[in-house]
Formats: sequence, structure tokens, C-alpha cells
Amino acid sequence: MLQIWALDGIPEIAPGDDLVGVILDAVDRPLEDGDIVVVTSKVVSKAEGRIIRADDREDAITRETVRLVASRTSPTGHVTRIVENPLGIVSAAAGVDASNTPEGTVLLLPVDPDASARRLAEGLRAVARVGVIITDTLGRAWREGQTDHAIGAGGIHVFEDLRGTTDTEGRPLVVTLPCVADEIAAATDLVKGKAARRPVAVVRGRADLVGDLDLPGARSIVRDPARDMFRQGADEAYAEGFAAGRAAGS
Amino acid sequence: MLQIWALDGIPEIAPGDDLVGVILDAVDRPLEDGDIVVVTSKVVSKAEGRIIRADDREDAITRETVRLVASRTSPTGHVTRIVENPLGIVSAAAGVDASNTPEGTVLLLPVDPDASARRLAEGLRAVARVGVIITDTLGRAWREGQTDHAIGAGGIHVFEDLRGTTDTEGRPLVVTLPCVADEIAAATDLVKGKAARRPVAVVRGRADLVGDLDLPGARSIVRDPARDMFRQGADEAYAEGFAAGRAAGS
Repeated sequence: MLQIWALDGIPEIAPGDDLVGVILDAVDRPLEDGDIVVVTSKVVSKAEGRIIRADDREDAITRETVRLVASRTSPTGHVTRIVENPLGIVSAAAGVDASNTPEGTVLLLPVDPDASARRLAEGLRAVARVGVIITDTLGRAWREGQTDHAIGAGGIHVFEDLRGTTDTEGRPLVVTLPCVADEIAAATDLVKGKAARRPVAVVRGRADLVGDLDLPGARSIVRDPARDMFRQGADEAYAEGFAAGRAAGS
Repeated sequence: MLQIWALDGIPEIAPGDDLVGVILDAVDRPLEDGDIVVVTSKVVSKAEGRIIRADDREDAITRETVRLVASRTSPTGHVTRIVENPLGIVSAAAGVDASNTPEGTVLLLPVDPDASARRLAEGLRAVARVGVIITDTLGRAWREGQTDHAIGAGGIHVFEDLRGTTDTEGRPLVVTLPCVADEIAAATDLVKGKAARRPVAVVRGRADLVGDLDLPGARSIVRDPARDMFRQGADEAYAEGFAAGRAAGS
């Protein structure tokens, strides 16, 4: 049985706030060894003071962009950019968040969400041996809508490694690397919600995934663009190919 | 509080088996109104007799391919193909499953998983007003590993529509369409596992998502390729562009 619940009563977070203390104050039933504490990146960013003045969210996105992956201009002139941010994560806004922030400001992602998650796990382990996941809401290729994903992880296995195990017929399993960290992030969005101020959830029932603080973080989920078949949008790749082809053909 | 558990004791499924009866036999605590029953596509396919003889899984993938999206040949000569299957779903093997099936056979996806999910929901509603999701394990662009996704849905909202709602500062929420069906699918993979024979899970605690049987199914999650920036792999788009550019330049 997996149990997932959100913590009520997490206050508005300000730069410098001690998130470990905030979470422990809000815990309604005591944390247990093997619990997984899942925190929305927004509150981690706020605690870490990652709020900046920005009259224009688009400017902030540009500054946070390491690589433009794809862009599209709608009939009304709105430009959607899919970009790689400094964490290697491909998303629609480079992690720049202008919702639930004071007017004229935007929130950037934590500088190093894996380090943030490890610090949180280390702090919370004064009470119980928990794992920590930090989440962000991301769109996907090929599918409409968004789901929550793991962008930071501390003290938890982000993949359940089934390589080497066999199916019921004794043959090696072809699907080999469930990304349990992303599945946990997605699951907790079902209790945290988007409009409500419930940025922290607890998952109980997968203690087997909790481990040492030096386990690989969520950075290991990011695919190396060199081996990513979708490292660039189709239109952008076509345009590059067209230019190269014309140069070669003339 | 969200509770998620897998049903033990689901037997091996054969063509023609009555899945509604199998699930009701395996239910350990009575289904309640608002529960969400989540079923791995594999058992739906088996019940629907979607098992075919295939000496070669690759041939079966080719037959199930509507559109080649991208492919890559590894240094050892193994070809990975990302394809669109007849359901519009983009995945690495067109839904062709060769694990946990008898030697010399492969399993195809249900012909119409939304219809299958609706039939299951309708049957289970003799007991309680549940929603049903049918899942498949899919890889993702930009991220390593796989997570479970919704490929069929009956009697459940696949998106939580927040359009029109505002954040805590009263501004419209930018992230507007959480794909709760995919989040539920991902969550249940945490209790169903891959190697174990636990293909059915129950989610309790989001009764608000359960609705009429004629709600849009999981087909509505599939993005129209015409508006998909990643409708084609970068290498394939580049090659097409190069050929067109050379023709234009000569």
C-alpha cells in the first residue's frame, strides 16, 4: 500500500527560510524511516532567494537559456520556446516561473536542485531516514498537458534498475529502467495541486528506494543531447539541413 | 490522502477472459465510488486475444508502425526505432510487447484502449462508480528511463483543467493542463512493478476525477503531429532539409 498526502499549513516561504524546520513544523503525522518527502521547486527557490526582478518574463527565459531546442510562433504572434536550461532540463520556459510570485518578479530554479535535495534529506534525517525529491512541472513531446517531474533528488534511487532481471518466462526484461523519481513526482502532483498552497507531500510505502545521500541525483535522468534523437525541433533541424544542402549543392 | 495498492492474485489472462470478473474476484477490499482502477495494457491485450505469432519482433513493429518518427543504429548494429503506432502514440516499439508472452509470440496493444477502458468501467460500475485507466510503459524525449502513461481511459477526466483559475496573486495560472491520467498511470507503476504479476492497481482519493463514461478518452492526450515541434527526429528532419536544400540550390 502506497500512501501519499500533502502537508497543510506550509506558510509563504521567504529567502533564508529554513525549509527543514518549516517541513517538520507542518508534518501532521511523524516522518518514518523510508518516507519520501517531495517538495515543489518553487518553495526551494524562494528559500534560496532565487527571485529576481524582471519586467519581462521572456527576457528572464532568454537569460536562463543554454540552448534553444525549438520555437514556434502562433498565429497571434506568441512565441513558444522549448529550451535547455542550465540544469540540462528541456522545458518550455527554462524553469522561469512567474506564477505565485510578486508582480514584477520571477522565480528561477534552484542553482543545484540535487544539492538542495541532499541538504533537505540530511536535515530531515535528524528525525527519520527519508529521501527527498524536488519537482518541476514540465510539458512533454508528443503528448498534451504537463506532469510533474523530478529535478532534484537526495538519498533516493531515481531509477529502479531491473537490468538483469527476467520476465515470468525467464527472458531478460526489455523495459529496464523505470524512472521512479519521475513517477513519484507525478504521483504527488495528484495531492499537491497547482492552485493550492500545498507544495510538500509525503510518500510512504517505497522505503526500498531510500538510500545513501551520495546516490546519483536527478541530473542523471537528463539525457545527454549527443544521444538524444530529439535534441532539436523538427523545423529547426530541417532548416539547418536545408541551409547545409543548399551550400553543398551550389 | 491518496491510497494506491496493487491487487494480488490476478491469474494469467487468456483470450476471452472476462477482465471485469477477474478484477472483482481479486479485489481484497471492496471497490468504492470514486476509486480509479488502473490496468496494465498487457492483460487487456491478452484478454482481447491480441497475441500473434511472430518469429521476429522487429517485423511486428514494422507492421504496427504508422509513421517512422526517428531511428538510430548503435555501434553494434542494433536499430532503435521511435514510431507512431495506430493509436497515435509515439514510442520505441509501437506497443509491440515480447516480454511475459510465450516464445514465438508477441502482444499488440488493444485495438481501441479507450473503448476497452469504458467497457471495463461500465462492467465494474455494477459494483461501484469507478474510473478506469489502461497503461503502457513509454520512454520520453530528453529524459532517460521509462514511466507508465495512460493509453486508455473510461469514466475519468484525463486532464485537470485549471484554465481560468488564478494563482495566489490572482493572476491566471500559466501551467494549465495537468495530465492527471498520466500522473495516475505513473503512480500505479510504483506498486505494480514490472517483473511481478500485479497488473491491476486501485487509486483511492481522487473521486473528483471520476465522471461519466462518455468523457474524452486517452486519445485526447495524443498531440496532433501537425502541432508537435518534435514530430520527427532531429537527424531525420535535417536529412530531409538537406535533400530539399540541395535540390533547391542546384
